[in-house]
Amino acid sequence: MALLGIDLGGTKLAAAVFTDDGSMLHKTSTYLEGRTGAEAGRLITEHIRRFVYPGEHVAQEEIRAIGISVPGIYHQKTGTVWAPNIPGWENYPLLQEVKSVTGGIPVAIDSDRACYILGEYWQGNVQGCRDAIFLSVGTGIGAGILINGNVLRGAHDIAGAIGWLGLNKPFTEGYIPCGCFEYHASGDGIARVARDLLKDTRGYQGILKQKPSHEITAHDVFRALDQKDAIAAEVIRDCIAYWGMAVANLISLFNPEKIILGGGVFGPAIRFIPDIQKEAEKWAQPISVHQYTLEASSLNGDAGVYGTGYLAWRSLNPVKTAS
Amino acid sequence: MALLGIDLGGTKLAAAVFTDDGSMLHKTSTYLEGRTGAEAGRLITEHIRRFVYPGEHVAQEEIRAIGISVPGIYHQKTGTVWAPNIPGWENYPLLQEVKSVTGGIPVAIDSDRACYILGEYWQGNVQGCRDAIFLSVGTGIGAGILINGNVLRGAHDIAGAIGWLGLNKPFTEGYIPCGCFEYHASGDGIARVARDLLKDTRGYQGILKQKPSHEITAHDVFRALDQKDAIAAEVIRDCIAYWGMAVANLISLFNPEKIILGGGVFGPAIRFIPDIQKEAEKWAQPISVHQYTLEASSLNGDAGVYGTGYLAWRSLNPVKTAS
Repeated sequence: MALLGIDLGGTKLAAAVFTDDGSMLHKTSTYLEGRTGAEAGRLITEHIRRFVYPGEHVAQEEIRAIGISVPGIYHQKTGTVWAPNIPGWENYPLLQEVKSVTGGIPVAIDSDRACYILGEYWQGNVQGCRDAIFLSVGTGIGAGILINGNVLRGAHDIAGAIGWLGLNKPFTEGYIPCGCFEYHASGDGIARVARDLLKDTRGYQGILKQKPSHEITAHDVFRALDQKDAIAAEVIRDCIAYWGMAVANLISLFNPEKIILGGGVFGPAIRFIPDIQKEAEKWAQPISVHQYTLEASSLNGDAGVYGTGYLAWRSLNPVKTAS
Repeated sequence: MALLGIDLGGTKLAAAVFTDDGSMLHKTSTYLEGRTGAEAGRLITEHIRRFVYPGEHVAQEEIRAIGISVPGIYHQKTGTVWAPNIPGWENYPLLQEVKSVTGGIPVAIDSDRACYILGEYWQGNVQGCRDAIFLSVGTGIGAGILINGNVLRGAHDIAGAIGWLGLNKPFTEGYIPCGCFEYHASGDGIARVARDLLKDTRGYQGILKQKPSHEITAHDVFRALDQKDAIAAEVIRDCIAYWGMAVANLISLFNPEKIILGGGVFGPAIRFIPDIQKEAEKWAQPISVHQYTLEASSLNGDAGVYGTGYLAWRSLNPVKTAS
């Protein structure tokens, strides 16, 4: 008796089998390799077949329920997915596609950000909390928000789009495709701001000059920071200010017990949590800011796949939701 | 058979009797006149006595339940209130005080911002919505946030403290007592920004010079705006930018069906709703911003007292909440 979780990212699919009490028995990963539309859907259904059906299966355990995470928005009412990085998934009928192979096994689907916070809730750093937030900073930025034990969905399943947070006036053109917060403080943002500073800084001869400017990544900026590069230091100082403001705004609006920092950037930015906390203390509601803790994810980049395991578990153990 | 709602503000108490279906039968108002601590509590219990007990009562209807709104935070677990503008109400045991006079009649207490959105939900502009927000801009700024039909409380009842929203870097000292958004765009903020501009503007001889600078109120600024005063225009233009950003941030985080603008400032600022909407469209998640509407309160400043009526109603008609 086991649970199957499938975490589809923009470039990779991870599938894991869990016990009922949340132990991960095994995990496999596959690259999307440019699959789009129905092909990306088939990658999911092929994995389900492998795990679910005897004779073909790689797992020894009978799969009782399946959870799936998608890199975008899952529309609960229609069972369709919008995933900006998978062409053909503007309104993809994933639930229907998956149900064509699952027989009577319960299936639950949700967005990546929902799965991040649910993974932490099930097996990570927010176990026992009712009100907590996972702030995911990777290529983009999103927030999985838990309110009284349930994920905040909003009226049309798009809640938690925190990359669009306005944190600095005036509005500039760069914010149009991705939002102010994401522009300045996502993985892409870190690289972009570094490139802009390089262009504007005369006489700079540091480590970030070793590559053509357009190839610089957030990873390069963190590496340069380790070598005390002045431009990298300026970029990350500015990011800390934005991360701190965003954390503060979440505190003031949600009064949560915990905020978890995760995603690819946390990672290397984990060491700045005390600085982000200090920044947040300046801006946030002064009582709420002493009622929460700011922590890194404890799931080593697997919060999302744990979340899919929890989706599966919850489909077998439904919680009464507000009517 | 009727419901009693008591809406305690920082300076005034309003009491109203409602029918079960939300018609307001009558309403009375009293000034606090400097009452603090237990005296402010007694003002509430005296009103309850007058309405509830035969012989003394002003109402003809039997009161079946009572709802009370407080200008601060209501701690559900302890039944105590923190109200910054009522000295002695740092941790005031209001529920216990009220229960000493109510006998077996159910009593429910909540914060002013919770009552604003509940009033709109019951009898105002968000009837039928599950996800909606009341942004109250008066002397201060707060938000009542409805999520799937329930008010967002947070871990310690302080959710919705939107006056603390950070919307513009860098942090400045003025934000310390009240938060960035409230500093710039509350009723107090409008007056403060106008005074600062007056100080910095040489040669200004407009209508705002008719009073000593420290006496200028938000009301004066709106009056000056009606007379095309340049300083008033600048102050309000800046407020529109902040209100738009705050609305956008609520849209991106909550994906609501409606945002209601209310409080003393909306009021005179209602005419700027189209401008605020335009500003919000620049910043917000681009799909969510087309899934909501921005509206004024339809309850003529009575959203709070209607909310107390709804608290009373709900204490007789409990909704199952998420476990």
